[in-house]
Amino acid sequence: MAGSQGHALAIAVSNAGGLGSLPSALSSTEALRKELEAIRAQTRAPFNINFFSHTPPTPSAERETGWRAALAPYYKEYGIDPATLPSGPARTPFNAETLALVEEFRPAVVSFHFGLPPADLLARVRETGTKVISSATTLDEARWLDAQGVSAIIVQGLEAGGHRGHFLSPDLTLQSGTFALLPQVVRAVTVPVIAAGGIVDAQTVKAALALGASAVQVGTTYLLCPETTISATYRATLKSPDAQHTALTNLFSGRPARGIVNRVMRDLAPLNDKLPEFPLAGTAIAPLRAKAEAQGRGDFSPLWAGQNVSGCKEIPAAELTRQLMGVGS
Amino acid sequence: MAGSQGHALAIAVSNAGGLGSLPSALSSTEALRKELEAIRAQTRAPFNINFFSHTPPTPSAERETGWRAALAPYYKEYGIDPATLPSGPARTPFNAETLALVEEFRPAVVSFHFGLPPADLLARVRETGTKVISSATTLDEARWLDAQGVSAIIVQGLEAGGHRGHFLSPDLTLQSGTFALLPQVVRAVTVPVIAAGGIVDAQTVKAALALGASAVQVGTTYLLCPETTISATYRATLKSPDAQHTALTNLFSGRPARGIVNRVMRDLAPLNDKLPEFPLAGTAIAPLRAKAEAQGRGDFSPLWAGQNVSGCKEIPAAELTRQLMGVGS
Repeated sequence: MAGSQGHALAIAVSNAGGLGSLPSALSSTEALRKELEAIRAQTRAPFNINFFSHTPPTPSAERETGWRAALAPYYKEYGIDPATLPSGPARTPFNAETLALVEEFRPAVVSFHFGLPPADLLARVRETGTKVISSATTLDEARWLDAQGVSAIIVQGLEAGGHRGHFLSPDLTLQSGTFALLPQVVRAVTVPVIAAGGIVDAQTVKAALALGASAVQVGTTYLLCPETTISATYRATLKSPDAQHTALTNLFSGRPARGIVNRVMRDLAPLNDKLPEFPLAGTAIAPLRAKAEAQGRGDFSPLWAGQNVSGCKEIPAAELTRQLMGVGS
Repeated sequence: MAGSQGHALAIAVSNAGGLGSLPSALSSTEALRKELEAIRAQTRAPFNINFFSHTPPTPSAERETGWRAALAPYYKEYGIDPATLPSGPARTPFNAETLALVEEFRPAVVSFHFGLPPADLLARVRETGTKVISSATTLDEARWLDAQGVSAIIVQGLEAGGHRGHFLSPDLTLQSGTFALLPQVVRAVTVPVIAAGGIVDAQTVKAALALGASAVQVGTTYLLCPETTISATYRATLKSPDAQHTALTNLFSGRPARGIVNRVMRDLAPLNDKLPEFPLAGTAIAPLRAKAEAQGRGDFSPLWAGQNVSGCKEIPAAELTRQLMGVGS
């Protein structure tokens, strides 16, 4: 959950018996090293590093100009000079530098989002002995990952918060609910399946296992834990009735991701097929996010959340992990 | 499943211990009476009649003209004179005539799609002693139905085939996967919940019960049973790899419904916000459907199906019902 957590959540989950995960997509190599050193210092339990494995796009001046024009009324409202926009979030894909960190810190599991990295990098990841996993959003993607020899496949149902992990086709009509996709993937592949999307408590964990999952991946449900790094605005929105209404939107990065519907999504429609490609769309909207958040408003923020926030609790992640496992229930 | 089944499927399911359902939306009163007489003659088990409860729209000449213009290339291809288009499928909502049939045949259950009928009609339905149920696609709709005093609520997940039952808002971003919606509705309402969307076999039945459902509603999975009335084209498509790709489309009626992606959905995009209102969009496309189906093609047919067709089997509905119940497994 890049931008929403660092080592603290990963450590708490791993020490509680789950597989804590460290996001890397928004971190510099140096920042990622610091996170990994913190994990090393505070747990001996297995942990996961998650990397994005998209292909960086060729910038399009036309798309950038169009996107800035769509945002122009907001720049005016906030007194932002669009000629002086800083770069947006980098969202660097897995590369030689991050590979070196994997080789150094040897996490038990490395997970990729948006497919898998280039073959040469992937081979070196595997040489470290780590298990490689990735997300599938369709049967075709699951079969493709299985053929690549991953150790497990995360089935990301349409309910899940954050970026959709699709990589074989951008057609969103191919995206399926957890309940329909999960059992079909379990039957179609040879490796264990990890269910994601709508898993929020012990009951939904059990239902995912009943559908054939070997494990579950839980994101949204941890967002209110004290170990996350989300803004006060994001936190307040998650606790409000607004969190009932999420939508897939590409306004914040250029790729569809599920987040709580906010002003910019309502004003401009959540999906726009003219945006700069992922992750470049983030550049033009980032200063609006900063200005609005400074005023306590999430009008331009990616408020990632899945379709069921009922499991979110302001309790330590270790306790939440035990509750998800059904310990004591 | 209006258009895809009549009394035969309902009878087979009821006699096997399920609650067979008779669709009414595409039937004249006289045809519906004949179906009910057939059910009466062949089962003493409880059965359900399903009615649409939409408000008939005011026709818009502008929308009708626009829709016919979009279809003009196809009219030309098939030699259809758009000046002579017959009326499309009527899709009559529940009314005084159909109420009289409920009063006469007294089904154990009456289900409504698109909310509930006007209060006076609903009161008379209830006076017959039948249980009234309806579909919810959001938490708000479930709470609304609960407040109206329905006997049970069908939770229709986004995976489900056919028409979405939403009635409080047309915003499709509010639609949620079964896995996320079902447990939230179970906790929010006072009446039993029936799960729909992705239920295809004994395993998915068990998972729905694990998520708190008291019962399940199964549609797509029955479509290949010999008791259905689907065309050879529809049947062949359901058995083909094409059935893996469904989408919500309003091209066939004016309201979003999930069907297998076909030529017209690919050509024109599956959703169009300029169509004649439900059910009037059906008129202009109906003759194209007829011409294409006569050539064995489903290019203009509503090929309703959910996101998991893996349970479809060409076996008698009674046997399929027992398999869904896990009898013998």
